[in-house]
Amino acid sequence: AAMAGWGWARAVRGLLLDVSGVLYDGGADGGVPIAGSAEAVRRIKASGLKLQLCTNETQATRANFVRKLRAMGFDVSVAEVTAPAPAACRLLKERGLRPHLLVHDDLVPEFAEIDKTNPNCVLLGDAAENFTYANLNEAFRLLIEMEKPVLISLGKGRYYKETDGLKLDVGAYMKALEYACDVQAEVVGKPAKRFFESALAELGVPAEQAIMIGDDIVSDVGGAQQCGMRALQVRTGKYRPSDENHPEVKPDAYVNNLAEAIDIILQQL
Amino acid sequence: AAMAGWGWARAVRGLLLDVSGVLYDGGADGGVPIAGSAEAVRRIKASGLKLQLCTNETQATRANFVRKLRAMGFDVSVAEVTAPAPAACRLLKERGLRPHLLVHDDLVPEFAEIDKTNPNCVLLGDAAENFTYANLNEAFRLLIEMEKPVLISLGKGRYYKETDGLKLDVGAYMKALEYACDVQAEVVGKPAKRFFESALAELGVPAEQAIMIGDDIVSDVGGAQQCGMRALQVRTGKYRPSDENHPEVKPDAYVNNLAEAIDIILQQL
Repeated sequence: AAMAGWGWARAVRGLLLDVSGVLYDGGADGGVPIAGSAEAVRRIKASGLKLQLCTNETQATRANFVRKLRAMGFDVSVAEVTAPAPAACRLLKERGLRPHLLVHDDLVPEFAEIDKTNPNCVLLGDAAENFTYANLNEAFRLLIEMEKPVLISLGKGRYYKETDGLKLDVGAYMKALEYACDVQAEVVGKPAKRFFESALAELGVPAEQAIMIGDDIVSDVGGAQQCGMRALQVRTGKYRPSDENHPEVKPDAYVNNLAEAIDIILQQL
Repeated sequence: AAMAGWGWARAVRGLLLDVSGVLYDGGADGGVPIAGSAEAVRRIKASGLKLQLCTNETQATRANFVRKLRAMGFDVSVAEVTAPAPAACRLLKERGLRPHLLVHDDLVPEFAEIDKTNPNCVLLGDAAENFTYANLNEAFRLLIEMEKPVLISLGKGRYYKETDGLKLDVGAYMKALEYACDVQAEVVGKPAKRFFESALAELGVPAEQAIMIGDDIVSDVGGAQQCGMRALQVRTGKYRPSDENHPEVKPDAYVNNLAEAIDIILQQL
């Protein structure tokens, strides 16, 4: 990436980082750190810049997610992770919603404090093996019997890649239930503006002093820019060269990977 | 139903009948004949009117479907059933398509003559218990890896009722795959115009001399009217009083059930 044109980065006080495809490659079934990323995280912290991970991961609690990241060599803590499940918990409490959960078994502890009796909404995550015919019918029946069905979806991804191949993501199942019940889901997670605002609040830095770094042109780059942030796209993870011709979203800069992004940003300070 | 205003029925030479909700109530897991319907079918045949069943049923071969109907007392034959699977077979042959099938086990024999090696499309039916996480991922992977994904769906129903409760229908899974692959499915079955045209060809009567009788305001009544047929809605099966305020579709008449429809039609002849 050219060093020219990065003048705006001088104002930066904090970074939001996407995780899968930026820190490591691979899915919930494993993961391999991307070269230079662990060192880049250390350099961010040493520089005094604030750091928050901003992820749509819903196959594990934040505690387990952080355990996995630390095992890969990333110096991060639970407080540094903004993820859909805690954001959904706040929304449920605010609105007095009692969810029926259709999520991954490993995510359930995130909802320990939430009243789940006599459900008045359905909450969908990337349930993976829990996306059975029986479980989908059960979620559908609960929704269709509500006077005003409320469907909350942790993200709206189409698919992702694991070591054994591509998998349908939560967005596909969200669409199935939306169609069957003639409702529109409320999405908690990137690219929802409210989710980025939560991440900024946890980062403790206003949008104009924050930079989002991600591999997803729509969810990461587009979502962050709509909140007034600058956003970089890394050429790792799900990045595809065709992203550079996206009809609607243009990142503030491209970088080959997180390590290069941090090199350049730190040189502006 | 009032007898006035049925003058148009004098020209009728053939009837298309929906099956579930018109001849019987209940799903693939059972079925109870609707009072007077078996006698109504006998009266149609005795009158010399032509008869064709026009169904979106995809959980059984036509042979098994007819066996079930005959066991319930309906005098019908395989040749009198227009169903999506045979229509899909014609389409596959015409276009040189080799399907990967995601359908109910009992429907598979309908595709015995079709080349299924090295698939170049995915064909979706109401697969019921076969709608597993693994099977959906497999269908998705085949589609996403095609240069131009072709998804064919046997109907696009949202849900149906069985004795043990509501079940998601094929349309919900169609929407999931459409979203994940960014494709539009081709629907074979009601309300597709081409499907009604096949049914009319098998009935051997032109649209203006045929009447469709069904319980679904959109699939049966709307679809048939778009082909130039008259269409009656029965107040059995999935009929709901709110159907009578449908913003777009208005049947040519309402009848309480099939028996009443046949009473009135035969009196016009």
